[in-house]
Amino acid sequence: MTTRQTGRFITVEGADGAGKSTVATRLYEELCKKGWNVVLTREPGGIEIAEKIRDIILNPAYVNMDKRTEALLYAAARRQHLAEKVLPALKAGMVVLCDRFIDSSLAYQGYARGIGIDEVFAINQFAVENCMPDLTLYFDVRPEVGLARINATKGREINRLDLEALDFHEKVREGYRVVRERFAHRFVVIDAERPVDQVYQEALRELETRLQV
Amino acid sequence: MTTRQTGRFITVEGADGAGKSTVATRLYEELCKKGWNVVLTREPGGIEIAEKIRDIILNPAYVNMDKRTEALLYAAARRQHLAEKVLPALKAGMVVLCDRFIDSSLAYQGYARGIGIDEVFAINQFAVENCMPDLTLYFDVRPEVGLARINATKGREINRLDLEALDFHEKVREGYRVVRERFAHRFVVIDAERPVDQVYQEALRELETRLQV
Repeated sequence: MTTRQTGRFITVEGADGAGKSTVATRLYEELCKKGWNVVLTREPGGIEIAEKIRDIILNPAYVNMDKRTEALLYAAARRQHLAEKVLPALKAGMVVLCDRFIDSSLAYQGYARGIGIDEVFAINQFAVENCMPDLTLYFDVRPEVGLARINATKGREINRLDLEALDFHEKVREGYRVVRERFAHRFVVIDAERPVDQVYQEALRELETRLQV
Repeated sequence: MTTRQTGRFITVEGADGAGKSTVATRLYEELCKKGWNVVLTREPGGIEIAEKIRDIILNPAYVNMDKRTEALLYAAARRQHLAEKVLPALKAGMVVLCDRFIDSSLAYQGYARGIGIDEVFAINQFAVENCMPDLTLYFDVRPEVGLARINATKGREINRLDLEALDFHEKVREGYRVVRERFAHRFVVIDAERPVDQVYQEALRELETRLQV
């Protein structure tokens, strides 16, 4: 895999309920309107091998799955999605908008699950080689706000289990903080507790100024 | 995963047709007779999660599988087999005899497929942490001898495809040479072109002198 010379690789990161997908879809539509060739994707991205790997990760019967097995499987699915979909698009000069990428593994598996960010980064470097995002839009919400939004969508109140999980989600947010400090040159933090239209406008502005799209 | 204090972890490595499984089975029987608690295993070792991962790796339909995806999947399967089967046995003070382990990935994916031994070692260090073999019996055969044995078992002549593959198998053998130099303290090379009984006797002698089993 050679170093790509063209294209723009943009990732969106943050907790569930931060509005990532909604904003990414609007960014995709706006960039298309501007005449860019854009791919909007998320892992496993319809890549069959990556889907099969994801099926193993998410199988609720596999209660014995070790957290390092899980991290290696995420890295394997990431590699295949990158090789089959992301990299060919970048090499063709396209803009790739990817909903979650390497930083999710660093924050969730590396920090929140306690494996260690450095260790999870090492296996992901093996997976992505030098293909890191040019820009990462981080949508920041407090866990309780993200969870409340998810629950509102589902039409139910926050329940006991959601509250128990707050601890984990707070750790994920701390993990993202550590990851952002390490990769400050490519990270933009967007306050995602505001109305979605404001969040979208700021995300678009960042894309335009930083990547001239 | 804490450092194990007990047990003995023995791996057998080498090309197909080197007689690894036959000798490992005889070693297993002999150690059992001597009163040791022994586990004879090979990846994926009947561990359901590892079997499912192996199904993806070996699926002949997945012609697009990237070699780094493959290496990550092998590491994931190795981790799960280690966590569920090898490590509990070692912690219980047992002797674990494992047919192929980390060195296979280094020789096949790292060297012969050209990813690089260092890179493949890095993801496998993530998978095995500090649980490396105490002793590795390397069964050395020239590729043409190993292939001839396999073909004899199948009751057919060496064919064109086998011969085309010789190049790859020669690279695997070179890869093992590099790996042995790096891990000289735990490697024993056994000339496996001799009759299987001689090979077995030498393997047993090595076990007895090096691990006091």
